[in-house]
Amino acid sequence: MLFQNITIIDEDFNIRENMFVGVSEGRIDYIGDTMPAKTYSSKYEGKGRLLMAAFYNSHGHSPMSLMRGYGENMALQDWLTKRIFPFEDKLDSNAVYWGTMLSMAESMSFGIVSTSDMYYFTDDMVRAVLDSKMKANLSRAIVHFDESDPNKLPSVIEMKRTFEIYHNIEDEKIKMDVSIHGEYTSNPLAVSVVTDYGKSVGANMHIHISETKTEHEECKLRHGKTPVKYFYDLGALDLPTTAAHCVWVEDADFDMIKEKGVTVASNPMSNLKLASGVCNVPKLLSKGINVAIGTDSVASNNSLNFFEEIKTFAVASKMYFNDPTAVTPLEALKAATINGAKGQGRKDTGLVKEGFRADLIVLDIDKPHMIPVHNILNNLVYSADGRDVVMTMVDGKVVYKDGEFLTLDIERVKAEAKLCTDKILSML
Amino acid sequence: MLFQNITIIDEDFNIRENMFVGVSEGRIDYIGDTMPAKTYSSKYEGKGRLLMAAFYNSHGHSPMSLMRGYGENMALQDWLTKRIFPFEDKLDSNAVYWGTMLSMAESMSFGIVSTSDMYYFTDDMVRAVLDSKMKANLSRAIVHFDESDPNKLPSVIEMKRTFEIYHNIEDEKIKMDVSIHGEYTSNPLAVSVVTDYGKSVGANMHIHISETKTEHEECKLRHGKTPVKYFYDLGALDLPTTAAHCVWVEDADFDMIKEKGVTVASNPMSNLKLASGVCNVPKLLSKGINVAIGTDSVASNNSLNFFEEIKTFAVASKMYFNDPTAVTPLEALKAATINGAKGQGRKDTGLVKEGFRADLIVLDIDKPHMIPVHNILNNLVYSADGRDVVMTMVDGKVVYKDGEFLTLDIERVKAEAKLCTDKILSML
Repeated sequence: MLFQNITIIDEDFNIRENMFVGVSEGRIDYIGDTMPAKTYSSKYEGKGRLLMAAFYNSHGHSPMSLMRGYGENMALQDWLTKRIFPFEDKLDSNAVYWGTMLSMAESMSFGIVSTSDMYYFTDDMVRAVLDSKMKANLSRAIVHFDESDPNKLPSVIEMKRTFEIYHNIEDEKIKMDVSIHGEYTSNPLAVSVVTDYGKSVGANMHIHISETKTEHEECKLRHGKTPVKYFYDLGALDLPTTAAHCVWVEDADFDMIKEKGVTVASNPMSNLKLASGVCNVPKLLSKGINVAIGTDSVASNNSLNFFEEIKTFAVASKMYFNDPTAVTPLEALKAATINGAKGQGRKDTGLVKEGFRADLIVLDIDKPHMIPVHNILNNLVYSADGRDVVMTMVDGKVVYKDGEFLTLDIERVKAEAKLCTDKILSML
Repeated sequence: MLFQNITIIDEDFNIRENMFVGVSEGRIDYIGDTMPAKTYSSKYEGKGRLLMAAFYNSHGHSPMSLMRGYGENMALQDWLTKRIFPFEDKLDSNAVYWGTMLSMAESMSFGIVSTSDMYYFTDDMVRAVLDSKMKANLSRAIVHFDESDPNKLPSVIEMKRTFEIYHNIEDEKIKMDVSIHGEYTSNPLAVSVVTDYGKSVGANMHIHISETKTEHEECKLRHGKTPVKYFYDLGALDLPTTAAHCVWVEDADFDMIKEKGVTVASNPMSNLKLASGVCNVPKLLSKGINVAIGTDSVASNNSLNFFEEIKTFAVASKMYFNDPTAVTPLEALKAATINGAKGQGRKDTGLVKEGFRADLIVLDIDKPHMIPVHNILNNLVYSADGRDVVMTMVDGKVVYKDGEFLTLDIERVKAEAKLCTDKILSML
């Protein structure tokens, strides 16, 4: 496909108008201000449109789409014990597949191409991601409290089995990460087993860290150290790690995060909605830490609207740290794109750059809420609406265009998701 | 028009499916679960759609759309003195007209039908609101520091003249309010003159109150009392008043606001973005105060996406006051609709109710991000996207439908807004 006469955000995040961008065999093979010599099989007229790198959702739990709006305005403990855990207890393979499909549909409609996802029923999630032609870093979250051998846990067996089958399949559409759910849901033995396995196979690590004040403080009481230090000492952060949340991290934690090259996945909307707090993104950025953006699950968000997440990422920090200059539009857009790709270990994507994978979105920037343009980056971060996404392309394949879902039967996805939800509710 | 087989939010905020709603001569004249006997000239098939009261934007500065994204990531004082004030100094009648038209277009696309607007060049704003078939409560903001007679100020003369010409014209599409810009931009003499005039003509009052900590604390130093007490003592709150922001109000202020029946227009996104703070909506609501929602101008927001504003209204309070149960979806939706209408002195609108004005919006609730439905109010507040609005109706007239603007030439509005912006920039 050849995009022509389109505005782009180039690899240096400069705006270039009236550009031509060619895509062949899944990759960007031409960027220029003149028509390329090569011919392409199809053309996309880009007047009033902007082409940019797609979004990488750095922290999600896709199957939880079935719990969207289920249990609102509840304190965290009530929400978990009265709603989420009982519902999750009834999940089956079919529900996870259709819940993931629903999230894949929603993701593509909001410009997300790849999600770092931590859940279970991993095989069904892989199927849904591949069927919808999307990408994901999937992990089987390990939860383990007692002193039994973690290697005998079904979850650890699933982690290993699925890593071996699925890692990097379909031209790296699927990447399998390893995952410790969190400090408060496992013991050091389990952390070591998962870490050792991850190191032996070269996996990335995905962990919840310091999401709530309670979690953070209780870790200090239990272990005499912060969650970051706890995982640092156990060697878990020696793996390329995505640490979700990091709301309550303390001074020395920042240095350990930096030293180990950890990617922090900030989930601003979920953190606001659950009253967890605000991640100190300005300080993370000032240390040169790779900060990316996650949605968390739609059970606590309650959407995968990534433009909303990007704006919240920027403004929550401004207010909370009392500084309207905190988190620039450029920083926010990098967090949503290239930083997310880096965190997922996807090194050849996340920028509009020749040779990079064509993970791209097109936006309609000709709507009243995007006019005038003093600086298009400002408009993208602060004014754009999620549904301004008019095309989403994954590895050169258009998966979503003008409201149409091209790689899945959207009516069936919606119907099956509703059926699975109703079935579970009927069992509660 | 007859809406048929549509889901509605009724006047008690209950959800009713497969309903019929008839609109004639600008008002709702039928609500029922069977087809009415009366015939209507057109029908709207409502499957997969939801009909609800439209939104009332309780605080805005519409012409400032031309400054969208102009001056980002700046401290408040720099933003005002280096960007906003110099730009505003070059505004003329034409720029205000097209800036307002642009905001009217954006408003209708996001489901807003009426805005409480405080600015100047009032005649041009009236023209734009009427030309676009929208509604507004307009006020000429009074700013006055010295001891000269406020009655001789051009702004006060304009306030009186425009009130007399425009108040309640076109079947109340235009309501003229009186306005003191704020405590820090006027003196008691000016407050008294505006208050006395407002009382003599039966106008509503619109004031900025305690938006920033600096404003609030400096008032206490100057007058030995909070801004609320200052206006209370001067009698300004004896008028039906909309107080914008109220971020820093203190204990006794809540009681005065309650006593005087003041509507608080909370502007959560602008307050986050400018790092002003978070309005204590839970406390206001607990006192039974009428809380409505405003966007503030797009120079500090930077959009009129009212669904985004509603979600931010709910989640900012949760986080800031450390309580995930604060501000329910029902409270948020009431603030966006009926409470806003009440604040504007519009007594026969803001609900889907027989006899009420047909100020209505239709939403597409069949998109992946709105599925499943455990509780549609939760989805509307936390999951809906601004562009889910597929129809906006003002007094029974459809102004926006499926992306089309029916009461204005959108291409011309966009072009003229850009031209006016470029002209001003060329003078700076």
